[in-house]
Amino acid sequence: MLSKQWKGLLIAACLNASFSTLAWAEDYMETALPSPEQRNVILIIGDGMDDQQITIARNYLVGANGRLPLDELPMRGAVQILAIENKPDGKPLYVSDSANTATSLATGEITSRGRISTGTGDNKILPTIVELAQQQGFRTGLVSTSSVTDATPAAFVAHMSTRICQSPDLMQAVVYRDILMGDCAQETKDKGGLGSIAEQMAESKLDVILGGGSQYFEPLTPGNSSQTVLGAASAAGFRTVSSAAELSEAESAERLLGLFSPDTMPVRLRGENGRQAESPEPGWLNYIHRYLGDVTQPAVMVCEANPEFSGMPSLKAMTDAALQTLQKAGSPGFFLMIESASIDKQSHYRKPCGSIGEVEQLNEALASATAFADSHPNTLILVTADHSQAAQIVPVESLFKLFPIPIFTPGKLARIKTPEGSLMAINYATNNFSAEEHTGANVPIFGNQEAIGRVPTFLTQPQIFAVMRDYLELD
Amino acid sequence: MLSKQWKGLLIAACLNASFSTLAWAEDYMETALPSPEQRNVILIIGDGMDDQQITIARNYLVGANGRLPLDELPMRGAVQILAIENKPDGKPLYVSDSANTATSLATGEITSRGRISTGTGDNKILPTIVELAQQQGFRTGLVSTSSVTDATPAAFVAHMSTRICQSPDLMQAVVYRDILMGDCAQETKDKGGLGSIAEQMAESKLDVILGGGSQYFEPLTPGNSSQTVLGAASAAGFRTVSSAAELSEAESAERLLGLFSPDTMPVRLRGENGRQAESPEPGWLNYIHRYLGDVTQPAVMVCEANPEFSGMPSLKAMTDAALQTLQKAGSPGFFLMIESASIDKQSHYRKPCGSIGEVEQLNEALASATAFADSHPNTLILVTADHSQAAQIVPVESLFKLFPIPIFTPGKLARIKTPEGSLMAINYATNNFSAEEHTGANVPIFGNQEAIGRVPTFLTQPQIFAVMRDYLELD
Repeated sequence: MLSKQWKGLLIAACLNASFSTLAWAEDYMETALPSPEQRNVILIIGDGMDDQQITIARNYLVGANGRLPLDELPMRGAVQILAIENKPDGKPLYVSDSANTATSLATGEITSRGRISTGTGDNKILPTIVELAQQQGFRTGLVSTSSVTDATPAAFVAHMSTRICQSPDLMQAVVYRDILMGDCAQETKDKGGLGSIAEQMAESKLDVILGGGSQYFEPLTPGNSSQTVLGAASAAGFRTVSSAAELSEAESAERLLGLFSPDTMPVRLRGENGRQAESPEPGWLNYIHRYLGDVTQPAVMVCEANPEFSGMPSLKAMTDAALQTLQKAGSPGFFLMIESASIDKQSHYRKPCGSIGEVEQLNEALASATAFADSHPNTLILVTADHSQAAQIVPVESLFKLFPIPIFTPGKLARIKTPEGSLMAINYATNNFSAEEHTGANVPIFGNQEAIGRVPTFLTQPQIFAVMRDYLELD
Repeated sequence: MLSKQWKGLLIAACLNASFSTLAWAEDYMETALPSPEQRNVILIIGDGMDDQQITIARNYLVGANGRLPLDELPMRGAVQILAIENKPDGKPLYVSDSANTATSLATGEITSRGRISTGTGDNKILPTIVELAQQQGFRTGLVSTSSVTDATPAAFVAHMSTRICQSPDLMQAVVYRDILMGDCAQETKDKGGLGSIAEQMAESKLDVILGGGSQYFEPLTPGNSSQTVLGAASAAGFRTVSSAAELSEAESAERLLGLFSPDTMPVRLRGENGRQAESPEPGWLNYIHRYLGDVTQPAVMVCEANPEFSGMPSLKAMTDAALQTLQKAGSPGFFLMIESASIDKQSHYRKPCGSIGEVEQLNEALASATAFADSHPNTLILVTADHSQAAQIVPVESLFKLFPIPIFTPGKLARIKTPEGSLMAINYATNNFSAEEHTGANVPIFGNQEAIGRVPTFLTQPQIFAVMRDYLELD
């Protein structure tokens, strides 16, 4: 579809020729442009998928001279990420989590880390694009390789002061290893709240929910001793499935809830024998002085298929099912969010092969989305990350290797043999904890032809919300 | 100017109306497009300016909700970086240095680390865009905050097997702390070679050379006991200047060589009292077990003016002088490369304030370039980085702060107070050496209106060479 700018130019150009040309040009516009049929937005989120992660995956999957489906998209820009302190007039926090970033994408508002579409300080409920779209009759869907109750999908449909309150039994005093992780005791239904994230999803008007997280739907619905949250979803009209085979047979479902694993879905790839990044091992002399001795770098590894992934529907399979279910006549179109969640989670665990496989899954889902858009021209596809992550490609041999001293990362390193026969070294060194930190760089955004002229080359996450809202002409 | 695609669309649209409309449309195209005046390319390189560096600078300079001049450019994409091993059929190396990347930008060829526009394995001389432009009468200039003989500017005009051979006395057995750093003994003039990088610059057809590196022009020209390399440049027609004051008075120079410091030019900003990123200091209990004890993070600091920068011409001042000198009548236009070199160098030294100031300098130079392009419409401006770098924005308080254990980076950390009143934490942890490694992520590219339709959203560094060559219509 031509942008207004180009329509104007074309009309103006022909106007200079003759009046009949103008009349023709206007007719041409009316007939040549697609009629105002259904309008769709497909938002694909690579959790933690920054430029390091994309390049790691590109180098491994298609080689350093190759191109991912992402790289073929005609629009590319950058998105500034921002959180604020959890108090009125909170100051900027330059590193975000998936809860506040998904909230910004879903609602157009900046909030604080851990929040699920609620306002900072006052816990105000922030309307989401899913809810706005539903109000105007659009069909809506959420697909994720995480638990569907995890922060990213949750923020598109639920509202909660903290992301941890995923099920009825996680609403108060959630304790892990004697540490209080969060408390949503004031947000239960009997306190006048909306209930847990799983409850909110079961009661939502969503048409498609696909991903992991079945354990969060197993508890009984509060106040009903005979119905689980999953049962409530079923009673509300969701066809529920729990395996790839069931998913492939659910084509005709009007509404679809698929939960394929207890929590986060297993990832496609893993390091050789399950290995992750490891510490270089300096020799004993190096403990006397850092210029002395030698260092043993972690052994080279390949990536291999993760046996736990066997039988799981791929992100592409879930995307295809979602597109099938959402494109129903009688609605003005749909909004679909698709998340490849474990690019981030595997990076937290220092597992580069895991992240690579999940970038691959995202690209396969993107290929399905672009194929759909080819036959449904009023479909805006946006691909972005929610925040940047810890992994860095570093030299296999130090840039300073001429110096005869042991040079190595103070963090953890994986050395991966790539299919093109080279070695790629991935460094994780944001902290000494069992999980890496997020980082704070602006992240990429990609779009199909519909994004050109609508998405500026640099924007904030709330502006992405505005682009999607305007595309669907939501109030 | 309309891209060919849109010209075609416009003509095709009008064609459908009537023959007279077609004729008109063609006439319109001929008259409405700018006449074939001078064509210029301004390539701005931020050395090591990846998305982390840009975001660090944005947060500090204009706040997390602000926009840098970079962010206003209408075209944005990503560039894959690649080096290869230094042998025939060398395999890919996923982390580059400024020599091989500048070679790719300048010549369109992939080479190995350390090489200055020479081929991998065979040391073949690779023609540069500066040389190609000169052959067709274009004026040419190189501006850098590094020594002008350093890898990035050198690769646009010189040819050498290794970057270290910057002056006549660095042509053989260059030794640093008893370590042989490189040897270009076979590339001296008396061996039939081109001589050192400084000699090649002095003898080049460049019209503008501005930056640091006077020490490399002080040695005598080989075979001439009375003339330094600088003297040779002067004899060859360069007006030579060595201070900001002299630069400002050199408006009328036909050819200009300005060297304002012995080596890399001092940077604009530094950490408080010259501080850089430092190691967190865990308490003694933490040495018993990593879950025990506490940690003292490096003290918060502000950035301050670097007193050594006083009296230096800014990158903007050098850019303005270069533009003034290059825009002479009688040539078909110019090619100008402008490098902000110390974004990278300060990151090697773990000095985030230094990098911030040099991103600021780049943005000021860009503002001069865009102002020039506003009045000279056939000017293509591209801004890119040559490779990514070590710095990462990490959370000031760990994402896992609920766990009562000391969590800290195993590398070096700077905690900077930003003008908007927040803290920003920058981590450097690629190695344990006195200088950080480069990293291997794809880097951003930005362009002005002329870049739209000419620069794809994803490309390689050799493709940037091709875009510039085609824009200037070079053979």
